[in-house]
Parts: sequence; C-alpha cells; structure tokens
Amino acid sequence: MRITIATIFPEMFEGFISTSIIKKAVLKGLVEIDTVDIRSFTMDKHRRVDDYPFGGGQGLVMMAQPVIDALNSVKTPQSKVIYLTPVGEVFSQPKAKEFVMLEHIILLCGHYEGIDERIMDSVDICLSIGDFVLTGGEVAAMVVTDAVVRLVDGVIAEASHQQESFEGDLLEYPQYTRPADYLGKTVPEVLLSGNHEVIRKWRLKESIRKTLQYRPDLLKKRIFSKEEKKMLLEIESEKVEKD
Amino acid sequence: MRITIATIFPEMFEGFISTSIIKKAVLKGLVEIDTVDIRSFTMDKHRRVDDYPFGGGQGLVMMAQPVIDALNSVKTPQSKVIYLTPVGEVFSQPKAKEFVMLEHIILLCGHYEGIDERIMDSVDICLSIGDFVLTGGEVAAMVVTDAVVRLVDGVIAEASHQQESFEGDLLEYPQYTRPADYLGKTVPEVLLSGNHEVIRKWRLKESIRKTLQYRPDLLKKRIFSKEEKKMLLEIESEKVEKD
Repeated sequence: MRITIATIFPEMFEGFISTSIIKKAVLKGLVEIDTVDIRSFTMDKHRRVDDYPFGGGQGLVMMAQPVIDALNSVKTPQSKVIYLTPVGEVFSQPKAKEFVMLEHIILLCGHYEGIDERIMDSVDICLSIGDFVLTGGEVAAMVVTDAVVRLVDGVIAEASHQQESFEGDLLEYPQYTRPADYLGKTVPEVLLSGNHEVIRKWRLKESIRKTLQYRPDLLKKRIFSKEEKKMLLEIESEKVEKD
Repeated sequence: MRITIATIFPEMFEGFISTSIIKKAVLKGLVEIDTVDIRSFTMDKHRRVDDYPFGGGQGLVMMAQPVIDALNSVKTPQSKVIYLTPVGEVFSQPKAKEFVMLEHIILLCGHYEGIDERIMDSVDICLSIGDFVLTGGEVAAMVVTDAVVRLVDGVIAEASHQQESFEGDLLEYPQYTRPADYLGKTVPEVLLSGNHEVIRKWRLKESIRKTLQYRPDLLKKRIFSKEEKKMLLEIESEKVEKD
C-alpha cells in the first residue's frame, strides 16, 4: 500500500519515516510512504498558504487552492483522502484495519485554525485522533501511519496480532522478562511454573484488573464468561482486603 | 518547563523538535525538550534492551534495568514520569492542562510487547492516547509534547486558546478565507455581512451541526441553552427536508 502525507512541514516526517519498524517496512517494499509539500502549490508571491478568516476571529486559515492542488497532484482513482482534524470521527483500531485494506491513503494535515471548508469535496474521511488540541495534523498523521503500517502483511510477526490491546476489549496483562530477580523485585512465581493453564488464568485475571483500574469504560461493552465473572468478584474482594 | 523523552529511538524526534511551533518554543526558551537514549544504559554486551517474556507468549519485553537507569539519570525531585502505554488512562485536553503546570515531565516510550512491570514504582502516570495499537510510544510522546507545548505561556497567542475544539464540548465551526469565490465555490454570505451577532449565531449552529455529525457522544454531557435547543430543532428539520 501507499501512504502520502500532505503537509506544510514535510521535514517533520524524516526521522519518523527513517526509524524502526516504519523504516523496515519501507525498505522491504511492503509500504511506500511519501510526502507532498502543500506550500509548493501556493500561487501567492510570498509563498503564503494561509490568510485571515472571513467573519473575524483569531488565527489564520489555510487556503483551499494550495491544498486542493497538492491533493490533485498525488491523487489516483484509488486514493482516499483522510483529513486529520478535531472535527471528525475518532480513530480506533477497527478504523486502522479498514485503512490497511486501501491501496492509497492521503493523510491531509491541517494547521493553524484549520483549512478553508471548501476543500471538503476533496476529502473522503474527517478523522480525529482524540479529544485534545494539537498544533497541526502532523503528529496525528504519524499516529495513523504507525497504526496502519504495522498491520500491513509481513511488517510484524502474524502471531503478535493475536493477543494485543483492544482486540478483546481488555487491556494487556503485565509482562516480565529476565532477570527473575531484579534488585530484590521478583517475577510472579506462576510465570515461572511452566503450567500453561495456570499462566493463562493469571494473565486473564490481571488483564481484567488492569482494565478495571484504567479503563472501566471498556468493560461496559464486554460479555463476561463464567470464569471472568468469578475473577471479577475475586478482584473486588482483594481490593476490600487491601483497603 | 522541561520535557524529556526516554526512548530507544531518539533520532525519531529530530524532525519533530526542529520544526514549526515546537522549534519556536524551544528557540524562545519557553520550553526545553531533550531525549535520553534507553539503549545507552543497557548492561548487555550486545546492547540489547529486550528479552523473551516469562510465562511464554509472542514478542519481546523491554528489560527493567536500562529503563529504570535511564529514568534515574534525568529525574529530579520535581520530575513526573508519564509512561505511554495502551494500559493507561486516556489522554485528553484537561490532562494536557494538568501536565503544563508541571516543572519537568519525562515521557517514557515503551516498545515491543511493553516494558517489564517492575518499572511501575518509577512511573507516576500510565497514559494512553487512544484505542489503537502503535509500534511504540514514540508517536504518542510526540502527541503529548505537541498538545502540552502549545499551552505553555507565550507559545501561541492567548486569544487562540479561547475558542477552540473541545473547550466547550462542541467541535469547531467551518472556517473560510480568501478568495470569496474559489472556482465558483463561494463563502457563506453571512460571513461577509460584518454583522457580529448574525455571524456568532451562524457559527454556533454550524458547530452544533458538525458535532451532531461526527461526535454525537460529546453532546450527551452538554447542557444546552434555549438558543442552542432551538438550533438543534432547526438542524433536525433541515435534515428531514434534505432527505
């Protein structure tokens, strides 16, 4: 697949594209990542891409013309344009799985107070990465790129996809690696037992405990098995004992 | 304030730190941003920072020792350590406002299948940026840095903070800038009227319309004024006419 980032700050992506898993995916030819510099499409003699908003108000608004021309320069009939803006649906793992099925996505990064609304005919999806304000869409584009690229076939080991956060509405259980004793802090004995069933149960219970602690909202949509209901009760009674 | 990013990929932040608003904030001395390379603290002769998980399972787990030593090398009594992990509370604008009050935050980027749980005594806050899976905490750390730095006094114009997305549980209204006619697409006439009250009403109504379209969940917690209730009814009836 191909990911094109439309931005006025293409240099911001250099470190991101040339590091770690993204770099490997590009070198292996599994994904193509490029940028298009919106500023190079401005018709303004001072190379400006923004101007004051009609109707008054603070800040500057990006002009429609350079943005639309930049998009048109990279668009193919297969492209989907995703505009990163707080005024959009919220990004989530199911959306990452949709995007990875597409042949070419163009991630459009807004800046300042947003982009002139008349670009909307050129946009397929308005996407927000969360309820916080960013200086521009660039870091949001990195988040979407990172989440999508790791789902491309061959980028990471298939088995790693099976047991991961959000896949089952439960957060991940605590992980431990060597040494078994680190400055007197030891690994839970069960993990050294070699008993797969006992380890599975411990991990499931700790997953539920973590989810209760940090993301009780995720549990609302979950249908609990009999085993999980028992664990929930145990966790509750362990909390009482601790208090 | 100071932001330190603890990562095994410090080079990933070069473009991010040296661009746009972040760069200006650093140059003005309003914020100090540095990185600490976790890998340089490993005691392993092959410079490894990860190992297999106890109890089995896919992927690798980052070892406690290099992470804790890296944190200790930059920690002061004023530091708060924020661990970017899917197993945490969800980042939001109110949290960005809390963080900007701190003197020094250390953003710890996990990788692979996470970090050995025995680092938790060194962590103050576990933070997730949303319900999607990333290859590591690095892009999440950029998101938090970006959202926090723009709130530092003097980084962006004070007035820009007043009317922004999420501040009032409503998404922003559409923005337009010159030219008034772009390839036959015109700016809504009301914005050219110069009548501030009519513009205010139009923008409020369009904010409600955008929020209804993309984020009806945000409206659930809002207490609507009489004026807003009337607008809601108008939007609903306009929808019916359109269908």
